[in-house]
Formats: sequence, C-alpha cells, structure tokens
Amino acid sequence: MTKKIGFIGLGMMGKPMAKNLLKAGFEVTVWNRTAAKAVEVVEQGAKSATSVRELAAAVQVIITMVTGSAELEQVVLGAGGVLEGLRPGATLIDMSTVSPATSRAVAAEVAQKGGVMLDAPVSGSVGVATAAALTIQVGGDSAAFEAQSDVFGALGKNIFHVGGNGMGCYMKLVGNALMAINMAALVEALCLGGKAGITTEAMLGVLKTTGGASAVMERRGPNILKGDYTPQFMLKLLFKDLGIALDSAASDSVPMPILGLVRQVYAQALAADRGNQDFSAVAALAQDLAKVSLKTQ
Amino acid sequence: MTKKIGFIGLGMMGKPMAKNLLKAGFEVTVWNRTAAKAVEVVEQGAKSATSVRELAAAVQVIITMVTGSAELEQVVLGAGGVLEGLRPGATLIDMSTVSPATSRAVAAEVAQKGGVMLDAPVSGSVGVATAAALTIQVGGDSAAFEAQSDVFGALGKNIFHVGGNGMGCYMKLVGNALMAINMAALVEALCLGGKAGITTEAMLGVLKTTGGASAVMERRGPNILKGDYTPQFMLKLLFKDLGIALDSAASDSVPMPILGLVRQVYAQALAADRGNQDFSAVAALAQDLAKVSLKTQ
Amino acid sequence: MTKKIGFIGLGMMGKPMAKNLLKAGFEVTVWNRTAAKAVEVVEQGAKSATSVRELAAAVQVIITMVTGSAELEQVVLGAGGVLEGLRPGATLIDMSTVSPATSRAVAAEVAQKGGVMLDAPVSGSVGVATAAALTIQVGGDSAAFEAQSDVFGALGKNIFHVGGNGMGCYMKLVGNALMAINMAALVEALCLGGKAGITTEAMLGVLKTTGGASAVMERRGPNILKGDYTPQFMLKLLFKDLGIALDSAASDSVPMPILGLVRQVYAQALAADRGNQDFSAVAALAQDLAKVSLKTQ
Amino acid sequence: MTKKIGFIGLGMMGKPMAKNLLKAGFEVTVWNRTAAKAVEVVEQGAKSATSVRELAAAVQVIITMVTGSAELEQVVLGAGGVLEGLRPGATLIDMSTVSPATSRAVAAEVAQKGGVMLDAPVSGSVGVATAAALTIQVGGDSAAFEAQSDVFGALGKNIFHVGGNGMGCYMKLVGNALMAINMAALVEALCLGGKAGITTEAMLGVLKTTGGASAVMERRGPNILKGDYTPQFMLKLLFKDLGIALDSAASDSVPMPILGLVRQVYAQALAADRGNQDFSAVAALAQDLAKVSLKTQ
Repeated sequence: MTKKIGFIGLGMMGKPMAKNLLKAGFEVTVWNRTAAKAVEVVEQGAKSATSVRELAAAVQVIITMVTGSAELEQVVLGAGGVLEGLRPGATLIDMSTVSPATSRAVAAEVAQKGGVMLDAPVSGSVGVATAAALTIQVGGDSAAFEAQSDVFGALGKNIFHVGGNGMGCYMKLVGNALMAINMAALVEALCLGGKAGITTEAMLGVLKTTGGASAVMERRGPNILKGDYTPQFMLKLLFKDLGIALDSAASDSVPMPILGLVRQVYAQALAADRGNQDFSAVAALAQDLAKVSLKTQ
Repeated sequence: MTKKIGFIGLGMMGKPMAKNLLKAGFEVTVWNRTAAKAVEVVEQGAKSATSVRELAAAVQVIITMVTGSAELEQVVLGAGGVLEGLRPGATLIDMSTVSPATSRAVAAEVAQKGGVMLDAPVSGSVGVATAAALTIQVGGDSAAFEAQSDVFGALGKNIFHVGGNGMGCYMKLVGNALMAINMAALVEALCLGGKAGITTEAMLGVLKTTGGASAVMERRGPNILKGDYTPQFMLKLLFKDLGIALDSAASDSVPMPILGLVRQVYAQALAADRGNQDFSAVAALAQDLAKVSLKTQ
Repeated sequence: MTKKIGFIGLGMMGKPMAKNLLKAGFEVTVWNRTAAKAVEVVEQGAKSATSVRELAAAVQVIITMVTGSAELEQVVLGAGGVLEGLRPGATLIDMSTVSPATSRAVAAEVAQKGGVMLDAPVSGSVGVATAAALTIQVGGDSAAFEAQSDVFGALGKNIFHVGGNGMGCYMKLVGNALMAINMAALVEALCLGGKAGITTEAMLGVLKTTGGASAVMERRGPNILKGDYTPQFMLKLLFKDLGIALDSAASDSVPMPILGLVRQVYAQALAADRGNQDFSAVAALAQDLAKVSLKTQ
Repeated sequence: MTKKIGFIGLGMMGKPMAKNLLKAGFEVTVWNRTAAKAVEVVEQGAKSATSVRELAAAVQVIITMVTGSAELEQVVLGAGGVLEGLRPGATLIDMSTVSPATSRAVAAEVAQKGGVMLDAPVSGSVGVATAAALTIQVGGDSAAFEAQSDVFGALGKNIFHVGGNGMGCYMKLVGNALMAINMAALVEALCLGGKAGITTEAMLGVLKTTGGASAVMERRGPNILKGDYTPQFMLKLLFKDLGIALDSAASDSVPMPILGLVRQVYAQALAADRGNQDFSAVAALAQDLAKVSLKTQ
C-alpha cells in the first residue's frame, strides 16, 4: 500500500523535496502558508490540503520544512496545527533547522498524542535537494527511523541516524558552525596572500592540494573569484543558525570561543547590509577591511 | 650531463627528499649539522661535504631544508655559509618555512653574488615527502623556476609557481593559517555534538558529506577518535608559523582577527605542555575545557 | 499625601531597596514568590499583599525587581499579574536587568491599560543597594521619570534619564559588557606579569596609576589577591546578561567581536563549574590555563 | 656633589624629562640623533655631547629614551655606543618601551662592562611627563634602584620597583595590554548604546559611576565625543607594543586570547590608515563597522 505523506513548507528547499517524493511514488499531500506555491507541485500529482489539521488527519507521515523554531512551534502546536489532526502512530519528520530544545519540546507533545517525531535537518543546497542527494541527519527512535528509510532515501543520498530526539538538530549545528568558521577563515587568509600579490586563482589551486583545503573553499571559491554573492545560503540565515548553536552551547556548558568571535564577523557583514547575500559575502567584508581585491581582473 | 645538487638539512622531511633526488638520478651532495644523520643518505649514493661552503662550491643547485628563518640566515649568510662558496649562476632553493621578509633578504644577497634564489616551501607530511607527492609552492623568477622543474618533479606532485621572491613563503603561511583555524574549529564544534551525546565517529561520518568538511578533518579525524597525538606536525612548530603569518600580516596591514584568536588557542595547548605533540592536540585541550570525551570507548 | 509603592521581588538586591523606601517614608506593600522572604520587610513596616494583582490594585507605583525577562513577563502579563490590577495612571518601574525588547513589549501592554512604564535597571552590589547609593539608568517618558524622582532618590545616588522605553536596559547592557570585558582582560594581563614573577600586589599598585586602571580592577583586585570568589555578582548571571547584550546587538546590527569572544571566556569558567561564584572567578580559570598563581602567599 | 646624568633621546617624551632633570639641579649632558632637537634643552643649561660614547664617558648615570628594541640595542651595543664609553660602576637607566628579552640582553652586556642597568619604562602622556608626574616601573637590582631615587623622583610621581631586570618592561606591557583592550571594548560597547539612541555624553556620564568605568574612558571619552584623534599615543606604536606583549606571552606560555583578538582590531584601524592617529581612533573604526555616530552634534 502506498505510503501517504503530508508535506508542509514548499520553500526553495521544500518544493524540490516534495517533487522527489512524488517521483518516488509516494502519495503526497501538501500545504503551504502561501497557497500559490503549491500549484506547481499539485500539477505534478500532489493533493492539496486546505489546512494543516486536515493534512495531518489524512496521512501517516508528516514532513515539516519551515524557516525556524517559532514557525515549527506554530505549525505543529498552534491552533489548527498538526497536533490537532495527528493520527495515533503517525510520524512527524521535521527537516527544518531548529534548536534542539524546541525540537525536543515538540517531540514530547507529539509523543503525548500517540505519535512519534524525528528531527531530520538536511545539509545541501537547492541543487542538491533537486538531485535527491541531500545529507540527512536524523535524531529520534531507531525503529521510527528505520520505518522511514524509504522516505529519506527518496530525498537524500547520505542518511545518518545520529541518536535520540534533538541529536539531528545538534548535528546540523555542528556542521553549520564548521562551515561558517572555515569560510570566514578562508577569506581572512586569502587576503594575506592576495595583498602580497598572489592571485586568488593561484591560491585556490595550491590550497586544494594541502591541509588547508575545505568543502567551502571548493564550493564557494569560484564565487569569491567572481565576487558573486548570489544567495545559495543567505548570510542572515546562517547568522541565525550560529546564534542557535551558541545558545545550545551555553545551555550545555560547551565553550566556543572561535564561534563566538566568528559569529560577530558575520555580524559585521550583516551591518554592512550583506544579510540577503550568500554567506560567502564575508569575503567582501574582509577585502574591504584589508584593502585588497580577490576578484579576477 | 647530470645535474649536481647540494642538499642541506637532513631532518624528518629532508632525508626522504634527498633520497628521492638520488632515485631520480641527480648527483647529490649532502651536509647536515649533525653529521650522523647523513650516513643513511650517503649509503644510498650521496656524497658528503665537510662544510656548507665546500658543498656550495661543488654544485649548481643548492637546496636548504632547515627549521626556520634564523637557521636559513646562518647557513646561507653566516661564516662558512652558502654565499662564501656560491658559484655564479647557481640556484638556491629554500624549501624551509621561513618569513617572506627573511626569504627576500636572503634572495637579495644571493642575487648580489650572481646567483638566483627560489623560495619553495612544501606542504605535506613525512609520508607524503617519502612518496614524492609534496605540494611545492614556489616564489621567484619564472625562468629559474622552469629550469628546476626536474628537481621539483622529483620531490613533489603538485608544483606551483605563485609569483616573485617571497610569494612561496606567503602561500605556505596562508595554507598553514587555514589548517590551524580549521583544526581548532573542528574540535570546538565536535565538543558541542559530543556533549549532546553524538559519537565522534558519527559526527565525522556525517560531516564529510557536508559543507563543514575539511582536509584536516579527513586527515586528523582518526587521531581525535583515538586520542592519538603522535606528532606528524608538532604543535609548537605550527604555533611558530602562525606567529610568522601574523607578523607578515601586521607588516602588510592585513587584519586577521580569527587567526589572532586561534593562535592563542594553540598557546593554551602549549601552556598545557602539548607543544611536542601533533597540532591536533588542541582536541585534548578543547575536551578538557568542555568536560567531554571525544575518544571512542 | 504619602506615595503608595508596591514592591515585587525581595531578593538579595530587592530587600535592601524595599527597606530604603520605608526609611524614606513611603507606604510600601510587598509581594514575593517565597512569602517568607517578606517577613523581615513587613516587620519594618511594609504591608504584605497576598497576590500581585491585589498589590497592583492598591498602589500608584509598582516596582519590579525580578531575575530576568521571563519572570518580568510572568509577573506583569501572566495570570493574576500586575496588568490585571493596574490602576489607570499608575507607574510600573522595572528595575530588573531584562532585554530591551521584552521591556518595550511590556511597556506597550502597560500603556494599553492606561499606565506608564519606566525601565530602570540598577548598577551596584548589595552593599551599594543597602547604602542607597545605586546607579539607576532610566528609560521612558521624561515626565514620568521626573514624577518618580523621590522614589529613585530613596534608592540611588546616581540617577540618569537616558532616553525612551528600553534605553535604560540598553544602558545597563553597555555597562555590564564593559565590566565583563575589563575583568577578563585584567586577569589575562595579570597572568603575563605574574608568570614573569611580578607580584599581583605590585601589579595592582602600579596599574591604578596608569591608563590600564579600571573600576573592576579596583573593586575586584583584592579578591583576586586572596583567591576569594564569594559571589557579589554571580558569574552565571553576568553570562546571561552578556547573552542579552549580544542578542540585542544582533537585532540592531552592531558587531561586537570582543564581547562575542569574552562571553565564551566566561563560558569556559561556567564549564569549569564556577557559575555560582563571583564573575571575578574568571581569574581562577586564567591562572589554570597559564599555569601561574596570582594569589598572595 | 652634583650627580652627572647623560640623556639620550630627546623626542616628545624625552625633552620634558631632560628639562625636569635640569630643574631638579642635576648636571645633564644630552645627545640626540637629530642634533637640532637638543638646542632647546641646551639653552636651558644642558651640555651637549658630540657622540654617545663621549656622553657615556662623562657621566655616572645614562638615561635612554628611544623608540624601541632595535634603537636601544644600537645606541648601547652598537659602534660608538654607550658600552664603549661606559665607566665602571655607572648606571644605565632605559626608560623606553622595549621587549623584556632585549632589555635583559642589554643588561647582561652592561654588567659585563662593570655597569648596572635598570629598565624603567614610563606610563603617561607628554603632559604628564612635563608635570613630572609619570608612573615609572623599574626592574633591576634593588640597591641600584634606591641609589637613583633622586633621579626617578625628578621625573615621576608614582615610582615602583617591581622586580629584577626585565620586570619593568613586563609591567609596562601589562599596562599597555589593558589600556588597549579596555579602549577597544569601550568603543564596541558605546556603539551598542549609541545605535539604540543613547547619546555618548549620557553613556559616559552613567558609566563613570559603574563597574564599567576605566581610566581610558575618563581620559579618552572627550576625544570620542569630539571625534578628535590627535595623537597623544599613536595607534601604530601601541600596535607595536601589543606585538611585544604577545611575543613575550608566547615565550612564557601565557595564553592571551583577548589580546590576540584585540591586537587585530587595532590592525583593522591600521589598515584603515589610522596608524598615525591616537589609539582611540579605534572608535572611528567601530562606528564605521556599526554604522553609527558617537560624535556630539
């Protein structure tokens, strides 16, 4: 029997994910705050629910892909939300990036209603989502995780169960912290070589063969070369995620001096009106401060 | 006619490099402060010089692989040093990690004696040196660089000419700065996930598929798992290199706030008597401070 | 006619403040979550209210001195809270350290009920509160501020009106940020001199005559000398306040790299179980990290 | 019998100091690299030496007030320098800000020639030097220190013997580190309040009554208000001193994360061409980054 999936949140990431579920043969019902965003997915075969509660009442698996902790709380716990329609034994998979504390609080409410929740934030850009090649880091009950392996398999390539509720969220925060620091470090270091006169192209060529290489260097290096900061992952959203990481670290007594500083480097970029650019726009800030250009002539 | 190469500095890196030159068919004369260290290479066919001056007088190409700026100055500019024996038209290739300022000062002296200097620091561990797979970043005259492509080819796999004198040194500093920051960031972030209960193994598995991946994570991750800090690159040497990077940045008016902080993270590890361990021993410090263990049971 | 004041929150700071209002001749009604804490003040002449609502209904001026933003929201906006009893034209003076955003939100609710709110956080320890010598930084309407000059005068010595609603909170955050940074800097710098062999006493003696002097040095220097971290201002509370400062800075696009780092220095002290000590206990952490003792023999 | 003092280095600080020695009745012989700078002091009664060696040969006490470690080494150890003329039993008082390592090395050479050296760097601006109110922090032999109390008394108000050779230098580095951090912290925190709309004047008024007060706030607050960065202590010189502090800390295994970061904040100001302004010009940088003005209208 075909698994029925409800999908909430058809944003830049959510839309290709919902489409991939359709392609994989699932029966998908969608809901989005802005109904117009659902049209395209409905044309490809999805049903459309008129409310979250209705959606929840009609499916076994509900996926949420919303912008943050507050939105998750509202769509699940709020009036007319998931909890009001949740069927006993149903599974809520939250794939948003939210705080572990929020995720656990929501999971407890879901459990009280007889459901089960998995926190399953994703890593990867829109292109990766479209290619069904996301990294998915999942927290929650093992059996519940296994039971949804078909769903995860339709969305991503690298699927990991990392622990109990909230652990998927933590895993995502760890990855984002590293991405943020490695990026800010990259542009700072490139300015040293750039001001000495080495071309950015030469530096990137050398670095990728050394211990100084990183995924952000490979993925964002070309953007730095071109000075192209078209958002793939908006700086202001990463800034927000780093705040969640630092709040979680504070709760858990984990000192993070480097992240504490680096978040403020992004704050400098935010203050310079680069919040809606790609997070690699810290490169522009670093070049301004060091009075050097890393762009190719 | 076989190219005659003089090799000065048969340390952990220098010895396998000298052997690779022999394997490649060059005529190699060696000199080392501690003569005993030359025995093995001599047994494999190298000649031994009784002084640096004598060595310099006998060859067309001199390679220096010493521990730092002061040692380079002494062996080249000091009494009985390279300059006293240097033949007109000879090439000095310094493959040590020294400051750009020192390298340029030495290059100027070499030029005055009718020679030419290339700064060609290497990236890679002892294993990589042995496999003749080093990354070599070369600064200096283009023609001089081309003329030594056979020498570089015998020592490394990724050979780059990045600019004029001193630029090789700058390139090395950029790479080391990134390696140092990415490592310190890695252990800080792992502590966040580790204290939440995710295993280090799980974290490393996830991270390598995400934008948080880095070369140091791949190369040193296993060491962190085992708590094994056997030195491949001693923490105190990296600490010294970061000082050169910051000094060069200060001279060039390049602000490096993240590196300024991160060097002090390594200073904390130094103060905790970890200077002779691998630089990945910042992981031990981070675990102490966060009261968490990243080691596998 | 005697002004009637309701006082909510008889903690370490609140109790001496309520007593000073009695001494100044005001008619004071108190309420505290733990009723036992009210006994002493009642014995000195205060009335006791059985609920916050009852207290609010009986007075013209309500002072809140609670532990944070969440507590303020609950006691004012919650069920049975201030708003339910507030008389038209009454003034709510919040003297807690809360976020500007929370303060403004509460002020808006108070205004809707026909009241007026002043945010008036205080600077100074318990001793200073007892001596009615607090610094009080007030945000809100000028006329409302003037109308309460008798109340402020009974509690503090340095009374400032710094701007509209929320500005008193901002002012407090600025002061706490400086206090936190100056303290962390002090202990870091003392370790440099201490490890070189200069006595802490000698250093403090010299420093107070130089541009390196600070209020925290004067006030906490003796504690560092004795290694006495009996809490006057608990480290964990300052840590929380620094979080509010950074959150406010993030909202306002003000980069604070030094505070971003320094908060994590306090996080290191928290992780070392020093949260319930005085915030000067960062001195202990610094000594541990630098392997030096600043205590007098 | 009148004590004969040789004074080397008649810069902005040295000149008023030499005059104060004359006023106190000492017989003063001066030497300056740029002879014209000596004219004014000679008119007031000083003798002029034609060389450092000649000066040294004529006096019992030699005071050096030069710009840094390299200049001290040259004037003392170089050809025609102090050592060549030094009389047995003479005292060299170096009042420059130099590294402890250099100071100790010079002291050892002086001792070998039968002299004694005191390192006695000063704290205070030109105005303070003129008023003979400097803070003087002295390292070296106690008896030698006591023997020069008349000399120190003619130059300063707060005279401290803090330990053996080099300790005066360390003490100065500690003070400068604190001054630098407290200043950078001040402007960062003022930006938070300033962007919220509190006037700088109001903030400074409040802060001086709180635990956030500091000597730099009192001394440089008015400059920030006016946006006046006329150099009293040039930013580039403080930047250099912070480098000495960090180098000394590295040698002694004292981690200084806050200073490591803060020096780079000054590096940002240097890169913004503010090196020849007063070090309080970090205020201008902070305002640029936070997009706020702290100047009074």
